[in-house]
Amino acid sequence: MAGPIVLLTDFGERDGYVGTMKGVILRINPSVTIVDLSHTIPPQDVTDGAFVLGTSYRYFPAGSIFVAVVDPGVGSERRAIALSAGAYTFVGPDNGLFTLVLADFAVPTPDGGGLASLMGTPVTGVVLEKSEYFLPTVSATFHGRDVFAPVAAHHSLGVPLAAFGPPLTEVVSLPSQRPRWENGALSGQVIHVDRFGNAITNITRAELARLTLPVVEVVGLQIVGLQHQYAGASGLLALIGSSDRLEIALNGGNAAVEFGLAVGTPVVVEEARLVDEARLPSREGSGMIDEESRSG
Amino acid sequence: MAGPIVLLTDFGERDGYVGTMKGVILRINPSVTIVDLSHTIPPQDVTDGAFVLGTSYRYFPAGSIFVAVVDPGVGSERRAIALSAGAYTFVGPDNGLFTLVLADFAVPTPDGGGLASLMGTPVTGVVLEKSEYFLPTVSATFHGRDVFAPVAAHHSLGVPLAAFGPPLTEVVSLPSQRPRWENGALSGQVIHVDRFGNAITNITRAELARLTLPVVEVVGLQIVGLQHQYAGASGLLALIGSSDRLEIALNGGNAAVEFGLAVGTPVVVEEARLVDEARLPSREGSGMIDEESRSG
Amino acid sequence: MAGPIVLLTDFGERDGYVGTMKGVILRINPSVTIVDLSHTIPPQDVTDGAFVLGTSYRYFPAGSIFVAVVDPGVGSERRAIALSAGAYTFVGPDNGLFTLVLADFAVPTPDGGGLASLMGTPVTGVVLEKSEYFLPTVSATFHGRDVFAPVAAHHSLGVPLAAFGPPLTEVVSLPSQRPRWENGALSGQVIHVDRFGNAITNITRAELARLTLPVVEVVGLQIVGLQHQYAGASGLLALIGSSDRLEIALNGGNAAVEFGLAVGTPVVVEEARLVDEARLPSREGSGMIDEESRSG
Repeated sequence: MAGPIVLLTDFGERDGYVGTMKGVILRINPSVTIVDLSHTIPPQDVTDGAFVLGTSYRYFPAGSIFVAVVDPGVGSERRAIALSAGAYTFVGPDNGLFTLVLADFAVPTPDGGGLASLMGTPVTGVVLEKSEYFLPTVSATFHGRDVFAPVAAHHSLGVPLAAFGPPLTEVVSLPSQRPRWENGALSGQVIHVDRFGNAITNITRAELARLTLPVVEVVGLQIVGLQHQYAGASGLLALIGSSDRLEIALNGGNAAVEFGLAVGTPVVVEEARLVDEARLPSREGSGMIDEESRSG
Repeated sequence: MAGPIVLLTDFGERDGYVGTMKGVILRINPSVTIVDLSHTIPPQDVTDGAFVLGTSYRYFPAGSIFVAVVDPGVGSERRAIALSAGAYTFVGPDNGLFTLVLADFAVPTPDGGGLASLMGTPVTGVVLEKSEYFLPTVSATFHGRDVFAPVAAHHSLGVPLAAFGPPLTEVVSLPSQRPRWENGALSGQVIHVDRFGNAITNITRAELARLTLPVVEVVGLQIVGLQHQYAGASGLLALIGSSDRLEIALNGGNAAVEFGLAVGTPVVVEEARLVDEARLPSREGSGMIDEESRSG
Repeated sequence: MAGPIVLLTDFGERDGYVGTMKGVILRINPSVTIVDLSHTIPPQDVTDGAFVLGTSYRYFPAGSIFVAVVDPGVGSERRAIALSAGAYTFVGPDNGLFTLVLADFAVPTPDGGGLASLMGTPVTGVVLEKSEYFLPTVSATFHGRDVFAPVAAHHSLGVPLAAFGPPLTEVVSLPSQRPRWENGALSGQVIHVDRFGNAITNITRAELARLTLPVVEVVGLQIVGLQHQYAGASGLLALIGSSDRLEIALNGGNAAVEFGLAVGTPVVVEEARLVDEARLPSREGSGMIDEESRSG
């Protein structure tokens, strides 16, 4: 049984654009399962689309076909592509939407963004050029409906990627979002704010593992130690969230709104070595904000 | 054929959390039907989640498995549970989300909330403890993905509830939302405001049946008689809505916004016995606001 | 294999109303595919519902059954109907929701709205009167759940339209939205604003084909020539959008918010014959706003 077709867009659901894509898919493959991943990526925010796709795809069944359409360049020279990575297929514009996925498959990401080579990686891809797999009329403004949905539907019926166009050797990549070690401190930033106001950073569990007792500095406050969960803490707290990234949250409240956190807000983490350890809570600590050690 | 898995959460759809739960379910049971009930329950509003679930579940097919995740206590000591009630299964945190459902199955609800006993009721349940039915890694912040979705998917494949953990004899219950009779008047409140601005109360059709011509007092106004439908009325009107509860509405407008109705707004209903009956409209009346008989 | 049941409403998704309709459908036909077209039509905005349905339905598979519920008259004398048009079935209130669909099937639309006759057209229909196909109890306020969803589900199982009630010979039609030619200029208006702030007009590709180099006047500005796509242009631009209608947009921005465009905003298009053609860009032009030729 083929996997589902999974849709991620910035289309909202109000205008019927996503429903129309589903109609196109079902006209080609009436029995495929279609799943919505998100349709409220902020308009034209390729970086956020890449984050949501990159943190979610691995939970889907082998054989899943992801159609991702956050596409400010629709109708221009930007290419339409399909990628095969592990057990998954990804279909969409060549504008960096797949950057986080590709990093998982060892595709090297240029620090400042640009072209990433697929040579020597397990990822293969094609440029979507064979118009017999598109709708008969292709508009200049809605390739989700006219190109990406029909290609995904044909692929779900067994048409191999190679049939859709010539091989792809490099893809557009967004700038790297890796945090930097500077003077013994890990310097990162908020990269996504979720519905609850939790601010998710680009600092991962693996990087935090190098610290015994992390102190998180954000918006001029210091949070000492990591919590295990939201419940039970008071004030701004830090924990490792469900995407294995450092997350700043507020139990029972909206951290982003109440503390002014947004995408791009700097977050610095360092070892609590300069602080009197006797005063400190255990690693799964209180999440208290230590006024005395406030920086500056 | 097994029933669908029905999802209710406060996750929104923007961050991909719901889509990820669907991926987890389809990886375990690729052919199950998944239905969204609501994902925009106000963040952490267990009471509202209980209302939406409680007014909707009975319209679903026998065999439906409801996964309800409004879960401020995720990762803490609160239990994860599954309940069997009539033809349905309910999976989620033990925090009162199932209170309205359980009341339909004769589980006595403590007036001020607390623990409700399942002994002597037709409801059975288990505590979800068998981690072989969870994802291999269970985060502290996303049990919808790591615990509830996989348990529901395994149950949809035929794994009986008893396999998931030890029996449950009592569950957390929200405070009762029953209205009170006081001095011959029925005293209730608004418990939900819908997209149209209709304010739904905790006063049911059965309770209203005791009155010949009800007069509804809300925000200092009196509404005499009940309308049959929205259309045709002018001004604030009262009717029995689609959940068999007294509802305050405004034909062609948003009653909640224009009259300041919100969850918790007091609503009192009494017999129109003190008013000159000759002046009154029939039971399916005008819905007029009678200024002269305004209380106070 | 029967086509999917496609839902369009103004219910939002928050209150569980749409999920409940899906439960009702699956209880009658557990294996039918259900697709959401839109549920955030502005409350009671029949005109907008008609637009979204009319621009989307043709992309769905033959056999699709559309259930459209934007229904301010629910519970009143307005009729419940089902229509057969080409390969599709449409179920909903008789209030004009199907106006754009019917125009595609040569049903003449009265200019000012009113009753449109189906006689001599390929469209047939019935009035939904046979209550054995409704839920056992029909509320006065939620026919989506109690009438339209169960009728669609029974139809998807093979019950012919004729079984649901007597034939229909005329239906309610919204006023025509055709633009007018006046003094050599095509006079239309904005009829829909999408999530991106693109303002879609009632002026179609076919009508624009009569102009060599169109100049679009909107909110006191003139846009000379049509763009091919959003990308690459600066300032307010005009193009033919994915519904084959003239659309006013802003590359990388929200045209509606930044330029005050809304449903009803007048849009006039005329030939650029009065302007020195040597100064003008090619037809796929710059989209520049020509300050000197600003009207008034």
